[in-house]
Amino acid sequence: MGTITKVSPLAPAAFPELPVIDGVSFATAAAGVKYQGRTDVMLARLIPGTTIAGVFTRSKTRSAPVLDCQSKIGGASDAGAAILVNSGNSNAFTGRSGVEAVAAITKAVADTCDIPQTRVFTSSTGVIGEPLPFDRVTAVIGDLAAHQQTTGISAAAKAIMTTDTFPKGASATIEIDGKTVSIAGIAKGSGMIAPDMATMLVYIFTDAKVEQSTLQEMVSAQTDKTFNCITVDSDTSTSDSLILAATGASGVDATNSPAFRQALHGVMLDLAHQVVRDGEGASKFVEIVVTGAASDADAKVHGMAIANSPLIKTAIAGEDPNWGRVVMAIGKSGADADRDRLSIRFGDVQVAKDGWRSPDYSEEAAAAHMKGENIQIGVDLGIGSGTATVWTCDLTHGYIEINADYRS
Amino acid sequence: MGTITKVSPLAPAAFPELPVIDGVSFATAAAGVKYQGRTDVMLARLIPGTTIAGVFTRSKTRSAPVLDCQSKIGGASDAGAAILVNSGNSNAFTGRSGVEAVAAITKAVADTCDIPQTRVFTSSTGVIGEPLPFDRVTAVIGDLAAHQQTTGISAAAKAIMTTDTFPKGASATIEIDGKTVSIAGIAKGSGMIAPDMATMLVYIFTDAKVEQSTLQEMVSAQTDKTFNCITVDSDTSTSDSLILAATGASGVDATNSPAFRQALHGVMLDLAHQVVRDGEGASKFVEIVVTGAASDADAKVHGMAIANSPLIKTAIAGEDPNWGRVVMAIGKSGADADRDRLSIRFGDVQVAKDGWRSPDYSEEAAAAHMKGENIQIGVDLGIGSGTATVWTCDLTHGYIEINADYRS
Repeated sequence: MGTITKVSPLAPAAFPELPVIDGVSFATAAAGVKYQGRTDVMLARLIPGTTIAGVFTRSKTRSAPVLDCQSKIGGASDAGAAILVNSGNSNAFTGRSGVEAVAAITKAVADTCDIPQTRVFTSSTGVIGEPLPFDRVTAVIGDLAAHQQTTGISAAAKAIMTTDTFPKGASATIEIDGKTVSIAGIAKGSGMIAPDMATMLVYIFTDAKVEQSTLQEMVSAQTDKTFNCITVDSDTSTSDSLILAATGASGVDATNSPAFRQALHGVMLDLAHQVVRDGEGASKFVEIVVTGAASDADAKVHGMAIANSPLIKTAIAGEDPNWGRVVMAIGKSGADADRDRLSIRFGDVQVAKDGWRSPDYSEEAAAAHMKGENIQIGVDLGIGSGTATVWTCDLTHGYIEINADYRS
Repeated sequence: MGTITKVSPLAPAAFPELPVIDGVSFATAAAGVKYQGRTDVMLARLIPGTTIAGVFTRSKTRSAPVLDCQSKIGGASDAGAAILVNSGNSNAFTGRSGVEAVAAITKAVADTCDIPQTRVFTSSTGVIGEPLPFDRVTAVIGDLAAHQQTTGISAAAKAIMTTDTFPKGASATIEIDGKTVSIAGIAKGSGMIAPDMATMLVYIFTDAKVEQSTLQEMVSAQTDKTFNCITVDSDTSTSDSLILAATGASGVDATNSPAFRQALHGVMLDLAHQVVRDGEGASKFVEIVVTGAASDADAKVHGMAIANSPLIKTAIAGEDPNWGRVVMAIGKSGADADRDRLSIRFGDVQVAKDGWRSPDYSEEAAAAHMKGENIQIGVDLGIGSGTATVWTCDLTHGYIEINADYRS
């Protein structure tokens, strides 16, 4: 992917202030894996007792580090743990050399940090199919281990970027039983975004104590409502990984806390929206709300068909309230629909109702909504109570420019 | 969709000479349905005894004329028949008024041509969701019926165009039992192309005599290998219709002729390729050959995942042999794949083999292939004997320009 570095017009004004999470520390380094003059490796260390859960791409061509992480999730939590991430090379489709690279990196981290190799999780993101020069990564591990900072999370968010135009972070602080619990997360991702399990690279930390199987159940359930509900270009990465680490350092057990679950959902949704806001070439942030479907699953199929339609995405780029294309996408999605019960709105403007153009449709009002930066498309199928909300961006010349460049 | 009228760089040099098909005649008119200063209605008349088969979009929001045609296919062949097509308005998502428009048009044709209304097939193509001004169509039917020409098929190919940049025709002439049989077809289509049953608008005529149920079986089977194997933008029309009419005027029964079946396949494939060559914004014609899949169905799923990937289509536009993105598309397709048995070639250049970059990979040679106008991507899954070939075009700034315009 290309090297357009202008910050997305949909970026937040600034990287947020993230709370320090007791029990985790960070360091970054410029290892020169591929990029020069910037950080490209981050190491996060986690205290003994930390529980770790994760969700990963379902791609059949997933990368060596993804396979390695998947085999380790759910392991013992009495030892410390570490997460090491490099950008610039995804170590995907690299055969035996990819497995060897993961083994070399995880062994170096384990030895340096004095933890079992089974508690070292790695991710790699960047070009596919090139051997990862893992010696450049292992060369900086001693330095990374020696310079850990509890305040290093924003530097970590920068080190994991590839085509991202801004670093992504989100947090929540809540009270449980009168005590404070914090959650802080970072993410990278901007193209090849159509997560099918987790997405891109996401790391979330909390000082809450959460039993591992519950932590896994929480993150899987919330992923389905957040990262699995976004798409930039319908293309699914070979490296998608989300890791959630609960250090327990606050002493507060959040295993059965609905407030914690809700706060985690908020952090994940915020990060997912930031990934869409950094969608390659994006100029509009689009929310698609589907109601009245035969099931929640059907609602999501319709929502994703709309969100992935090039004709709808280009119409949004052109500020055209082209609801006929929404009708088209619903028709092709494969999920249940009854043309004559279908209603569509753009923002608050009812454009179609009961299978035809709304009697009080105002093209002018619909066009006015399309001129905004935040577009909402509402679809009611009128046949059941299934609902889903998905998020995407528009398809612009910027996407072509970024991706029709020769590999950079 | 927009109004860019430059002819596609992938267009054939000229519209082909099509043979006259005994038993069918054509006329066109400028009814002003939407476009001004061009023909937009065509009427084809077919002699008594003509058998008619058809395949249509599976869209759940398919148009009123599609539903009407589907209800009539397979009807008696002792009466004459007629096909009326208008461009400029698809009469899709037009509720009761759409049904009334179809009824008015088919009744006017039936009365004027003295045939049963059940033998009048109509198609409409163009904007979705606007009421069809059917009185403009019925107003020209008398004139159309009065000016039929057996040589009018090329004029018909022009009258059914919307965003097409060139009219599309193909033909075959074969000998069966020492007698000549001809097939001639026309098609329109350029955007919203990801057929799921038939595609776009396609009309094929032959003077062979073919029993109706066999004709239907033939066209369905061939559609799966031709029109259902192309995609421009993954978006499926609400109006896709293919009608095949066998007049029998040659006196030759081709019901059991493998040569006829083969010739029909050739005509359909030619027309399907022309639709891809007129893909909105297309600058490259892309053939994707998948072998070694677990099944033919799996091979097609992989092929379509590659053909619809925006990242691959933009890489092709950029002449980048980015095979990592092919690995990505195979991984996400959902069909069976084993990363470590996967081989990929661009043209004759083996780029990946057995799950890694090919040992004798030449980036230069692969890049040279990408500079051509005809790109071939070969994928061998290495796990079975399933095969499929699909066709698409690249994704360029032209597609954005055409589709981000305000509806024209």
